[in-house]
Amino acid sequence: MQPFTSSSISYDGEDLKILDQTLLPHREEWISCNDVPTLVEIIQRLAIRGAPAIGIAASLLLALRAESGSNKEQLQLDITTLQAARPTAVNIINYTRRILSQTTCPSFPDSVVKEAENIYQEDILLCKKMSQLGSQIINKNDRLLTHCNTGSLATAGTGTAFGVINHAHEQGKNIFLWVDETRPLLQGGRLTAWECLQKGIPHKIICDSSAALIMQQGKVDKIFVGSDRIATNGDFANKIGTYSLAVIAKYHKIPFYVVAPRTTIDPHCANGKDISIEEREDTEVRGFADSTGSCQWSPSESSVYNPAFDITPAHLVTSWILDSGVFTQKDLVQTEWWNPKET
Amino acid sequence: MQPFTSSSISYDGEDLKILDQTLLPHREEWISCNDVPTLVEIIQRLAIRGAPAIGIAASLLLALRAESGSNKEQLQLDITTLQAARPTAVNIINYTRRILSQTTCPSFPDSVVKEAENIYQEDILLCKKMSQLGSQIINKNDRLLTHCNTGSLATAGTGTAFGVINHAHEQGKNIFLWVDETRPLLQGGRLTAWECLQKGIPHKIICDSSAALIMQQGKVDKIFVGSDRIATNGDFANKIGTYSLAVIAKYHKIPFYVVAPRTTIDPHCANGKDISIEEREDTEVRGFADSTGSCQWSPSESSVYNPAFDITPAHLVTSWILDSGVFTQKDLVQTEWWNPKET
Repeated sequence: MQPFTSSSISYDGEDLKILDQTLLPHREEWISCNDVPTLVEIIQRLAIRGAPAIGIAASLLLALRAESGSNKEQLQLDITTLQAARPTAVNIINYTRRILSQTTCPSFPDSVVKEAENIYQEDILLCKKMSQLGSQIINKNDRLLTHCNTGSLATAGTGTAFGVINHAHEQGKNIFLWVDETRPLLQGGRLTAWECLQKGIPHKIICDSSAALIMQQGKVDKIFVGSDRIATNGDFANKIGTYSLAVIAKYHKIPFYVVAPRTTIDPHCANGKDISIEEREDTEVRGFADSTGSCQWSPSESSVYNPAFDITPAHLVTSWILDSGVFTQKDLVQTEWWNPKET
Repeated sequence: MQPFTSSSISYDGEDLKILDQTLLPHREEWISCNDVPTLVEIIQRLAIRGAPAIGIAASLLLALRAESGSNKEQLQLDITTLQAARPTAVNIINYTRRILSQTTCPSFPDSVVKEAENIYQEDILLCKKMSQLGSQIINKNDRLLTHCNTGSLATAGTGTAFGVINHAHEQGKNIFLWVDETRPLLQGGRLTAWECLQKGIPHKIICDSSAALIMQQGKVDKIFVGSDRIATNGDFANKIGTYSLAVIAKYHKIPFYVVAPRTTIDPHCANGKDISIEEREDTEVRGFADSTGSCQWSPSESSVYNPAFDITPAHLVTSWILDSGVFTQKDLVQTEWWNPKET
């Protein structure tokens, strides 16, 4: 496999390395990740996160495994294990299906390596297309709002929702970004804030529950979010708090855009009810721990409900900015989506 | 002044003592508070919080100051300083006006002590009345949701919204309570969870942004919140996140109740636009610190917007549960509210 480096994944010809995002914004440390248990572990503790980035990392690891002699059956087992590490995101499912379909080629394992490299390069291109299409929607001096992290840390390219915002910034549109902190794991307050600083994007961090107030105050022009899975009717799963934001945006008549590559659409999923929501550990809500310290503010005896994602119905979305165009719900429903299971 | 003890304020005949709520749920420590700068400091760092509790503590301290020889002019200066410590809450303004009106009585300083004792005893009675009226609205097996802390820590009695919920629990209505953690200072996850454990109320803590998801899932029957100030048209100020919750409740057609004593109504405030919103330190959003440790997860270079309160318009409220009855907006607008400035 050819060496490469993105913001969160790299390969130097020997080791696949993943940037440990749990240490951001304070430290940049890379973890060697050359086997499936390591990748599962770092997906589950969110050292790597972002639906495209997880799918890409899994594909690249499978390619390395094929190069080292794993056969189709072994790769199939690896894929089952990897898919279970983050059940809500669809990209890992789509990408690993593509990898698997190459295991029967005469050129195996080269065919698998080539497919993993394609997936990586495609993501960079997909991000570029989304950012170009999406930034056309952004006006000069727009005050934007985003949730969670959807930038270069979450993809191989410049990101989905954040890629759009960053492109508008680079075009000199003088945008301002409200960054939802995104409890419980604070990907907004930690990672999006860090990416804003890297890119020089003017921004302010807010608690998730302040978003309604700033909309009431007339300080938000448009909202851009990413997605972990989009049903063919347009319902979509994303980080917990997205649905809340979409309801509040609707109430304030603020346009609400989903930005995702076509690979996020699940052709097997007719609507949001078919998407399972991952629940995570109580400790994430009772407190917080990172490299700077740890707190537990809630009593251990109190129960917690900690869904990692929520489902936003299509009717709350203004449009879906995919790499292939800006879709209304009608467009989306009428499109035949590529089905990797059937190819 | 006669000795007394409530959940968060006590007087043993020598010292006025305030429970340091920043140490809950882990430790119960009381702070001696016999002068104005100490009370201002502990109000500002939220060692005491809850609009009624702050107003009561201020009144009791003024009574002690009067007993120790402070005259009307000195008390007036103290009142100005104390009111500035928490500008959004109205109770401290109403209560200190009552105290001031007693400084011209022939029986001063006894008149002031008597008035402070009345304010304390009245609050216990007000809580009792609210809890009796409000719990009539709660059905058997209702799943309730609340924001911030409005229990015995926030009042001299059993609380406002939490008092209602607790009363329904004591009546054996088999209620369940969703507790919004209430970022940034986590009064829900720390204090309401702690009070639920004290009272044996079945509960789960959620991130504020999960409230929409559980409403979508049909798991919330009614929402009860407190208030720091109610305008005469029914608009009200409360902890940041309340407006967000009210918008989401409206969307899901879930009844939304405000529980507060009449003393929370500000007769000088015609609508929510007249209520100023206190902004607090950036550090509260960039991280968290308590007795168990501290974290800073966001970069210091990122700006923050940290409003401590928001304003919810009256049309999102189902009814206002006051000590004097359950009010519709029409009832509220037609009532002549007591005006301490004019008495």
